[in-house]
Amino acid sequence: MEGKMKALMKKKPAPGAEWTQTDIPKLGARDVLVKIKATSICGTDLHIYHWDDWAKSRVKTPRIFGHEFCGDIVEVGELVSKVNVGDYVSGETHLADYNCFQCRIANAHICEHLKILGIDRNGSYAEYISLPENSCIQNDRRLPPKLATVQEPLGNAVHAVFAQPIAGNQVSIFGCGPIGLCAIQLCKVAGATNIFAVDQNEYRLKMAKSFGADYVINATTENAAKRILKETKRGVDVFLEMSGNEKALQQGFKSMRPGGNAAILGVFGKSVSLDVTNAVVFKQATVRGITGRRLFETWHKVKAFLRSGKVDLNQLVTHEFKLEEYGKAFALMTSGNCGKIVLYPK
Amino acid sequence: MEGKMKALMKKKPAPGAEWTQTDIPKLGARDVLVKIKATSICGTDLHIYHWDDWAKSRVKTPRIFGHEFCGDIVEVGELVSKVNVGDYVSGETHLADYNCFQCRIANAHICEHLKILGIDRNGSYAEYISLPENSCIQNDRRLPPKLATVQEPLGNAVHAVFAQPIAGNQVSIFGCGPIGLCAIQLCKVAGATNIFAVDQNEYRLKMAKSFGADYVINATTENAAKRILKETKRGVDVFLEMSGNEKALQQGFKSMRPGGNAAILGVFGKSVSLDVTNAVVFKQATVRGITGRRLFETWHKVKAFLRSGKVDLNQLVTHEFKLEEYGKAFALMTSGNCGKIVLYPK
Amino acid sequence: MEGKMKALMKKKPAPGAEWTQTDIPKLGARDVLVKIKATSICGTDLHIYHWDDWAKSRVKTPRIFGHEFCGDIVEVGELVSKVNVGDYVSGETHLADYNCFQCRIANAHICEHLKILGIDRNGSYAEYISLPENSCIQNDRRLPPKLATVQEPLGNAVHAVFAQPIAGNQVSIFGCGPIGLCAIQLCKVAGATNIFAVDQNEYRLKMAKSFGADYVINATTENAAKRILKETKRGVDVFLEMSGNEKALQQGFKSMRPGGNAAILGVFGKSVSLDVTNAVVFKQATVRGITGRRLFETWHKVKAFLRSGKVDLNQLVTHEFKLEEYGKAFALMTSGNCGKIVLYPK
Amino acid sequence: MEGKMKALMKKKPAPGAEWTQTDIPKLGARDVLVKIKATSICGTDLHIYHWDDWAKSRVKTPRIFGHEFCGDIVEVGELVSKVNVGDYVSGETHLADYNCFQCRIANAHICEHLKILGIDRNGSYAEYISLPENSCIQNDRRLPPKLATVQEPLGNAVHAVFAQPIAGNQVSIFGCGPIGLCAIQLCKVAGATNIFAVDQNEYRLKMAKSFGADYVINATTENAAKRILKETKRGVDVFLEMSGNEKALQQGFKSMRPGGNAAILGVFGKSVSLDVTNAVVFKQATVRGITGRRLFETWHKVKAFLRSGKVDLNQLVTHEFKLEEYGKAFALMTSGNCGKIVLYPK
Repeated sequence: MEGKMKALMKKKPAPGAEWTQTDIPKLGARDVLVKIKATSICGTDLHIYHWDDWAKSRVKTPRIFGHEFCGDIVEVGELVSKVNVGDYVSGETHLADYNCFQCRIANAHICEHLKILGIDRNGSYAEYISLPENSCIQNDRRLPPKLATVQEPLGNAVHAVFAQPIAGNQVSIFGCGPIGLCAIQLCKVAGATNIFAVDQNEYRLKMAKSFGADYVINATTENAAKRILKETKRGVDVFLEMSGNEKALQQGFKSMRPGGNAAILGVFGKSVSLDVTNAVVFKQATVRGITGRRLFETWHKVKAFLRSGKVDLNQLVTHEFKLEEYGKAFALMTSGNCGKIVLYPK
Repeated sequence: MEGKMKALMKKKPAPGAEWTQTDIPKLGARDVLVKIKATSICGTDLHIYHWDDWAKSRVKTPRIFGHEFCGDIVEVGELVSKVNVGDYVSGETHLADYNCFQCRIANAHICEHLKILGIDRNGSYAEYISLPENSCIQNDRRLPPKLATVQEPLGNAVHAVFAQPIAGNQVSIFGCGPIGLCAIQLCKVAGATNIFAVDQNEYRLKMAKSFGADYVINATTENAAKRILKETKRGVDVFLEMSGNEKALQQGFKSMRPGGNAAILGVFGKSVSLDVTNAVVFKQATVRGITGRRLFETWHKVKAFLRSGKVDLNQLVTHEFKLEEYGKAFALMTSGNCGKIVLYPK
Repeated sequence: MEGKMKALMKKKPAPGAEWTQTDIPKLGARDVLVKIKATSICGTDLHIYHWDDWAKSRVKTPRIFGHEFCGDIVEVGELVSKVNVGDYVSGETHLADYNCFQCRIANAHICEHLKILGIDRNGSYAEYISLPENSCIQNDRRLPPKLATVQEPLGNAVHAVFAQPIAGNQVSIFGCGPIGLCAIQLCKVAGATNIFAVDQNEYRLKMAKSFGADYVINATTENAAKRILKETKRGVDVFLEMSGNEKALQQGFKSMRPGGNAAILGVFGKSVSLDVTNAVVFKQATVRGITGRRLFETWHKVKAFLRSGKVDLNQLVTHEFKLEEYGKAFALMTSGNCGKIVLYPK
Repeated sequence: MEGKMKALMKKKPAPGAEWTQTDIPKLGARDVLVKIKATSICGTDLHIYHWDDWAKSRVKTPRIFGHEFCGDIVEVGELVSKVNVGDYVSGETHLADYNCFQCRIANAHICEHLKILGIDRNGSYAEYISLPENSCIQNDRRLPPKLATVQEPLGNAVHAVFAQPIAGNQVSIFGCGPIGLCAIQLCKVAGATNIFAVDQNEYRLKMAKSFGADYVINATTENAAKRILKETKRGVDVFLEMSGNEKALQQGFKSMRPGGNAAILGVFGKSVSLDVTNAVVFKQATVRGITGRRLFETWHKVKAFLRSGKVDLNQLVTHEFKLEEYGKAFALMTSGNCGKIVLYPK
């Protein structure tokens, strides 16, 4: 499609971003063009916005960032065969080549040539986005755009939570951002007998409570591991690290019983100090690193939970803005006093 | 303890049983004597009562039968060290030797020298029972006898249901006796997105509905597999066989999607005819035989579900009788128009 | 490529086949044309040749059959991007659409729209074959055609054998056709402590012995289950069904210890009679149906075993013929007095 | 048994030990007395001998240390029922209570009240040792004492190696002490296609080579991770940490491909620095802490490997001494220029 569109672009390697006009993306032969109905802010976007060390080392400018979105397909490349103009889709951010060793052994989410929307290729903070047909996820028309755009973090939570058994088990969740909140809801749905939610932000702990946490612990005022051990006696069966905070990682392992399962999704800015001997070896712990979503097994579960009404993301979205109000949105996101923030290009 | 007690005994190899007086059991050095508060009727007891082919080949008379129970320990053998007089316990029916190959590799439930309460040794249809201390399960005082006695079938269901992932999956359950009903409740608690319950008895299908089944199917009037395939398109992710009925086994496999998981707990009177090629091989199915309860991992889960209030067995017990009214109880059980029947020796 | 080629074709729905001349296959946009260096006979081909009930119900004529092969790519469709003219490839017989539910959850081998080379589309008993680029497996130039063509049955064996742990375990293998023989070799390589091979054909039992079986049992003269129980006392840890014979299935389960793992790859002509209660339920058995090869995890393992020299297929190929000598080849195959038979179109 | 015996005892909290005379141990009711035929030196014993920080914090004096041994039962406590005078046994060092939560869920090796022979209770550097009957492992008379005493480290290796699939996979093993050497042999037996052994000691690397390592890498002169990545291109499938060295842990994770499995058995003196984000999270790694041996599943595998001749420990034992020559033995052990050292009380 020829023409211009409005977009939020990182034009130069510095904090902030610009609300600007640019070309509507060109399509490769297997790409589709999506007219965006809603897009949302991920933690990654905040790093890019503030231009921290990670962003400096990873992102090239100019770049339209943002990668959580939904919208309608308005144009398809000449070889596209799996989706059609008019389809209402969300996007999987991790673009795999479906041809490398990892893709061929069912690990497309860690493809050897992985590209990421909004980082390696222009993203969703715009009126239009182009992406490969393989990365489109079909949405049910009844799923409102406000919710269709926030399925990716639910997918991350599904991936982490169901990496081990949950029913009848006690769980500690460190970090109550949107993924942590989804994890709380999933653990509740899946029959966890006790859910301990830990964060440093009261707003998010309040959300954690309403999402189903049995106990919420503010790590700035209480020793979380000590509290969890007190309540459970021997520690939780499952520890989910969703904060990227070194101390949370250390405390989380302490909160877990010997023989327990840990899933780590949080991303740490640098190497962390960990008492591997007591946290992992003597505990006979099983620890799983979690990245992205299984393509596309995780998405099938996401769809199943949403379609059945077992999971409801309405509460997760606490604020909505026009995309051009990005300044307010990022300030709020920086404060942490929010759940998911959804932005509308129009 | 010296003295006499009342008991329901199979005195001779023929249908029926006798309400009789007999000696209070003697204790081995590691046995305990339990004064029974409540006992309940299992399908096995019905076979013994009616003296069918299986019972004839397996049970020696005279025998006090019955094996689901709870009560207080009133006496302990000289070497007992793990439980005490006054403890409120239930019994694990499968008595393992904790010394054979299977016991040593964490398969005590299929011990090479397994003995079964109420079959190989006098059971619980009496005022007192003796059993090894290792087979006692500690109960919380707040758990009423009516419920404490029916934890074994819940344990069977826990064992079968959690042999594969449930959250986000669709499940078909063939057979809505007490174990099937517990399975329905567990699948609901564990986040199954659709539960199909199949039986031939309307009373039980009604119970299935109130236990949380999304669909109930009467196999006498409807082709269950066809219906489930119609509702799910590709079949359920998980098939639980809890009926011991050959046709249910055949239909259950048909109701399951390729790549699905089946757990078979039902016991079939004789060899069955099965289209293994299409039911298992081409379907790349994983099929697990389920016997008893994992000792004692399953019991820990049973306790967790009850303690947390996630599972409630009150609805499961539909009728209560005095033990000496066993005639009425077994007649009702034979009709199938009941859930669990609890009997009280006093 | 324009032109004619020689091919072995099933021209009409009757036993036998015809050595004939036909058009070189046309290519779809994502197909490649392979000039065949070697092709081999699978049990499926024998069914088609003899035109048994299964073949009648499944295969449409005219059809070039055969599906195990290797050769060089001599032409590629206009959209082919993953392979090149000159590549030396084998083919994966199961053609998946890589778009359906099963394909998207890493079960492409049970694709909902599976097509099979040599059955649903012309096969490899010819000078040329066309197949989708996605179904090409790259071969190392050092792998001779005689071996490159027989990787599929090795793949079946890899899939079945490694569906459960093998190292330190005892294994019974019922059926010593090419897949069974590969399974014997794999079990040996993987540290099985005892391998029992069962068949009815002395030629194959002799091969089983030379492939590494510790015990070979002729089921026509000896009760295999009884013998295995005698040697192992409690039964084998792993039972592999690779015969498609009902009695073998029954005996195999008897040969397996409680708590064991069974993998069933054999295809049975009709429903079988099985004592599910004792074979599966009371045994707490885990039974896995095995179909085809995991795409493409299994192939990566096949390649790893061949490249490392751990597995050697030279012994597996006992006879080689020109393709036009198919009559002799199929007669030999029918007798069972052979391992793998390789055919050369030129 | 009344009387005196010779023993190697840590009499006071300081480096070294004393060859002394002391009472033959008294037996509890479920204990047995073993006349020791052979005992061997574990890394733990070296810590105790040198009285390092860990030993200071963990061991109380006076204490007979040592825990790897074999010998004949010469006396049994009054309640012993599973073993007999005259049995030829080895000992499992981890004494569990078989009654706690962990023991009841098949995790006896991480019993909540674990006691360790030679640390919490007198050990095997003596003419006699007492231990619970439950901790006796029956030996085949044909297994010479020199080998029967070194089954525990083989058990550790079995536990670590088979925590993930090995056949057809590439493996890196960091640390070539006795457990590492056993792991190399096991990986070879189990069909690993490439084994990389890393250590800092040339003597042990030479042993590693003769135990079956395909590549040996001296970490003092070569970057192990870089070398392994060069040889494998994408990294090994399995990483086994058996050194307790922080740098080995870091390098080991780097040597492992995304989606790989790590088993950590090494014990680190203090917290380590680890790039969890890249080593675990983005790699979608599965990491398992390994402590002791599964009771008694691991022992059954140990026995199976030895009985079948698949594993041969003869090469592992490089030196033999009289127990009273402990000075020479510990000096040699300190140098690292040895495999396993076996000591004979007589």
